[in-house]
Amino acid sequence: MNSFGTNLRVSIWGESHGKAVGVTIDGCPPGIAITDDCFNNDISRRKSGAKGTTPRIEADKPVILSGVYNSYSTGAPITFMIENTNTRSEDYKDITYRPGHSDFVAEKKYRGYNDPRGGGHFSGRLTLGLVIAGVIAKKIINDITIEAEIKEIGGTTDFDSAISKAIENNNSIGGIVECRVQNIPIGLGEPFFNSVESVISHAVFSIPAIKGIEFGSGFSSATMTGLQHNDLIIKKDGKTDTNNAGGINGGITNGNEIVFRVAVKPTSSISSEQKTFNKESNKIESFRLIGRHDACIALRVPVVLEAVTAIALADLKLCLH
Amino acid sequence: MNSFGTNLRVSIWGESHGKAVGVTIDGCPPGIAITDDCFNNDISRRKSGAKGTTPRIEADKPVILSGVYNSYSTGAPITFMIENTNTRSEDYKDITYRPGHSDFVAEKKYRGYNDPRGGGHFSGRLTLGLVIAGVIAKKIINDITIEAEIKEIGGTTDFDSAISKAIENNNSIGGIVECRVQNIPIGLGEPFFNSVESVISHAVFSIPAIKGIEFGSGFSSATMTGLQHNDLIIKKDGKTDTNNAGGINGGITNGNEIVFRVAVKPTSSISSEQKTFNKESNKIESFRLIGRHDACIALRVPVVLEAVTAIALADLKLCLH
Amino acid sequence: MNSFGTNLRVSIWGESHGKAVGVTIDGCPPGIAITDDCFNNDISRRKSGAKGTTPRIEADKPVILSGVYNSYSTGAPITFMIENTNTRSEDYKDITYRPGHSDFVAEKKYRGYNDPRGGGHFSGRLTLGLVIAGVIAKKIINDITIEAEIKEIGGTTDFDSAISKAIENNNSIGGIVECRVQNIPIGLGEPFFNSVESVISHAVFSIPAIKGIEFGSGFSSATMTGLQHNDLIIKKDGKTDTNNAGGINGGITNGNEIVFRVAVKPTSSISSEQKTFNKESNKIESFRLIGRHDACIALRVPVVLEAVTAIALADLKLCLH
Amino acid sequence: MNSFGTNLRVSIWGESHGKAVGVTIDGCPPGIAITDDCFNNDISRRKSGAKGTTPRIEADKPVILSGVYNSYSTGAPITFMIENTNTRSEDYKDITYRPGHSDFVAEKKYRGYNDPRGGGHFSGRLTLGLVIAGVIAKKIINDITIEAEIKEIGGTTDFDSAISKAIENNNSIGGIVECRVQNIPIGLGEPFFNSVESVISHAVFSIPAIKGIEFGSGFSSATMTGLQHNDLIIKKDGKTDTNNAGGINGGITNGNEIVFRVAVKPTSSISSEQKTFNKESNKIESFRLIGRHDACIALRVPVVLEAVTAIALADLKLCLH
Repeated sequence: MNSFGTNLRVSIWGESHGKAVGVTIDGCPPGIAITDDCFNNDISRRKSGAKGTTPRIEADKPVILSGVYNSYSTGAPITFMIENTNTRSEDYKDITYRPGHSDFVAEKKYRGYNDPRGGGHFSGRLTLGLVIAGVIAKKIINDITIEAEIKEIGGTTDFDSAISKAIENNNSIGGIVECRVQNIPIGLGEPFFNSVESVISHAVFSIPAIKGIEFGSGFSSATMTGLQHNDLIIKKDGKTDTNNAGGINGGITNGNEIVFRVAVKPTSSISSEQKTFNKESNKIESFRLIGRHDACIALRVPVVLEAVTAIALADLKLCLH
Repeated sequence: MNSFGTNLRVSIWGESHGKAVGVTIDGCPPGIAITDDCFNNDISRRKSGAKGTTPRIEADKPVILSGVYNSYSTGAPITFMIENTNTRSEDYKDITYRPGHSDFVAEKKYRGYNDPRGGGHFSGRLTLGLVIAGVIAKKIINDITIEAEIKEIGGTTDFDSAISKAIENNNSIGGIVECRVQNIPIGLGEPFFNSVESVISHAVFSIPAIKGIEFGSGFSSATMTGLQHNDLIIKKDGKTDTNNAGGINGGITNGNEIVFRVAVKPTSSISSEQKTFNKESNKIESFRLIGRHDACIALRVPVVLEAVTAIALADLKLCLH
Repeated sequence: MNSFGTNLRVSIWGESHGKAVGVTIDGCPPGIAITDDCFNNDISRRKSGAKGTTPRIEADKPVILSGVYNSYSTGAPITFMIENTNTRSEDYKDITYRPGHSDFVAEKKYRGYNDPRGGGHFSGRLTLGLVIAGVIAKKIINDITIEAEIKEIGGTTDFDSAISKAIENNNSIGGIVECRVQNIPIGLGEPFFNSVESVISHAVFSIPAIKGIEFGSGFSSATMTGLQHNDLIIKKDGKTDTNNAGGINGGITNGNEIVFRVAVKPTSSISSEQKTFNKESNKIESFRLIGRHDACIALRVPVVLEAVTAIALADLKLCLH
Repeated sequence: MNSFGTNLRVSIWGESHGKAVGVTIDGCPPGIAITDDCFNNDISRRKSGAKGTTPRIEADKPVILSGVYNSYSTGAPITFMIENTNTRSEDYKDITYRPGHSDFVAEKKYRGYNDPRGGGHFSGRLTLGLVIAGVIAKKIINDITIEAEIKEIGGTTDFDSAISKAIENNNSIGGIVECRVQNIPIGLGEPFFNSVESVISHAVFSIPAIKGIEFGSGFSSATMTGLQHNDLIIKKDGKTDTNNAGGINGGITNGNEIVFRVAVKPTSSISSEQKTFNKESNKIESFRLIGRHDACIALRVPVVLEAVTAIALADLKLCLH
């Protein structure tokens, strides 16, 4: 199902080259200020245009269809629609089974009825709905602050040269993005099945291209000893000297900063010649992908990562009594 | 909430030193063979006793309270109870805020009403319910096979010496566990919010001590190019030459092996002298933890990891029409 | 939350005098034929215009925003938007606490942030989304047929004169609507908490103005004996001679016709002089409601009742494995 | 699925003649006083023994397996088990398709794997779990009071003679039970899909033998005019002079008393000679049901009705922020 959350439910819908993409947010408390302007910043952070991102430019102007009255949330479901204006479906029409893409699984799962244009419902364009819901969620969680930033591109911190090289080679490149959450109340999350890690990772793996997530010391904790890893509580309010736990014990926020990192794979769509299976000839053939692509999708991940984190935390917060 | 799943719902309950721990499995199709014996193998794999695991030995004999008739599932909820017989609550009574444990967050979240004995509901003993549900789930997914194994302990593949050293030092040590799933049908999972990665990671982060998860090429994908990372489809059935995707595209199984790895932190409970905050004196003090502990909890993770993976996949399978 | 269903999830959104009302249907299997035309019949059955219904006429033309490609469902969420074109908000602006309406509870629940125009999100106009989702649901349940019809208006079967009299008196009048479902498979529903009666009644009480529901012999069963009430199975396939059970035993469909009736209260909006509480003067005052109203909302209920029944049954059907 | 509720989730399990019946309550806030004694009153109200109820007497002593520590809820799931001690399975072994019972649907739905002894999971004995959960729910909703009482038995208020006559005739008889809820806060419930009527009726139709439900003026509203039916708000706090709405407008509590009535069918199990379909001979045959039965199950409904109402309202209350 294309929705997430128990008390704040975010549902996304739409296709890359269909009429529109959109999002419905149910359970938003009444009285949250919502104006057209408040989405500009995060939408523009997500938007392509920088070096390494696709030249496809959409207006990306969300239309509020419901749930907002006199610039405040009413308590009823809020629906946003973003019309698709700049679609070039003919680019995709002959492509079969692009490597690294969902073409094959979509065809099988939906028995050939899926919309194949630009990835259809699988398109990264759907993350626009996540970003919009994220803006609302950030307002709901209020003084909790979330900040994501790129830590590595192609295994290096010299992002610029890594990207240039990828573009030059008609290739793409991955990266690492880190997210930090501050001012978090103690007690969000549940010991079993809805640990904060469970809920955040569930949301995060909805972002296309994410291949891994680690909290606090993460994978490096596997090489540590207990003496090294255990964080010492130094204050009555639970503040610890180190933060190997990443702000979470037993699945529950401990009031320290939540820290996690995600691995973003290189964009699957590249302009280099590749091989793939041709479903008509039943043979492996060379082909070259036409269309507009991001050389490094990780560049566009931070704002989406913040958004899904905000959505996850807002839902957890609204589950507290 | 302490339950997981939409069409197969697994709910766990109980406390480490309370009357019992248990699990209820709702949505299990009728006609699945269930005998007392069928849990022995996985329960004994989870059981402590090997070098590096706690000497607390429980009978761990699940009693079937409902949902099974004439050795077959009836279609009604199946409840298992495992009585706690070997509890030594006095070991824990003076302990406050064990480092790396949930003591602090549990006290705050539940306003002091939580059962503190042996970690109460946060105890690793609750995973017994997961293992039992996993046995049922494995039967539901039938010819899908799941195998988890330890890949590293303390950063090395020489597990034995790493564990010996940790025991010698009254310390503990982490590890990496890998899980592989074969014979998986194409089409499990959803593009948004219920990707296979979302559902598996949600379940996996219910296992205490897990700090990270990566699918396929995982974190190393962040250093790869698109040309390296894209898996080439070589057969009509979707078989790929490489498996950087870990068997999942666009959130959906592609029929290739699902591969993922988890990072297990070192056990928080260690016998070395440590410091912690004393909530009565409001000071940081030294203390030494009495009780029975695992030097390396990662050793007991594989069967639990298989279990939650089976639960996640069984639920996804029962969501297919 | 404004959504219904587990495997088929219908979410409605919008306000009577806002930009649009709409519905999102998630979980619809791929390959269901969906054209603009297929909604015409049920939308026109719901539409006002007959004697006793409001003269407000909307185009009520649903725009398909997502989830349909080449006239078939794709398997992705299907979103419909129906723009509001014929709104006259000034009619409502001075009204406070219309008797029998949600004005008071909406103001309190949403702390004054609700959209009050025409009832906002509480408006009967939202049932347009239900009717559209019902058309899809009817296609999903396929050869199951659902037919609702008016049985009584104002306690009589001479509907015409009852309605004329209500109009003449600037008053309104209630009614009874019956729904019959045929060709139903055996085994839909669950013994506890998701009995067919539970699921249908849950959906039915989303229709504004419904005050009661009864299945099979319903309230008259309270006056019967067991010998009278027990339906005799006369055939191997479960066919019974009588149908006091209304097609449901133990919460589960038995293959016989499902029969239930609902009570529809008289429309709250009437043009007669009434009294109500004036929140500014804190006094009870006389007032007269301006605006366009249905003298008998029960006339418009049958198609909506069919719709929610179809939605409920489609969800139950998709829960079967 | 055998569970109910979003923020308070009640799951029941067990079979009439199996090892035990039970209930798990998840989401109960910490700090609710729970002792063995606090169930006595409601369990004894449910218990049979009065004229017209089955002579099967169980100890019905709930054992608390989890979630309670030092006589208070801990915030973790609370599981109760009630062992079945007084089972006489041989009474049922030859019975096929008892009229009015779930035997036929259970056999078909579960492909013959269901536990047929005493109705198995369909047994009215499962309502013991509802009653226990109801006791907890009543504590959660605190000063909201719920009272259910029998209004009619067999169409008359002279209950005693109606029951005597039914017993005399080896027959059974139905009844009407009314439930009233006081001290209810304004604002529980949602306009669409989770109206208070939707949520209560969903829970109520989990009680075996309920055939109808009506709120406020209910079915008689179908014969009323708007002028008669509209309740006049007479006070700032929403108090109305009449209560045709039954305390609910637009699906949301208005602070006035919630009133609803349910129809209870006559017990299906009667000792009179009846006819039924014999699945071996494929013929209709006469038979006489052996076993212990209630002549009027409605007598035992009030406490169960209060319980499910408390559960529904507690869940709605915990959904408020």
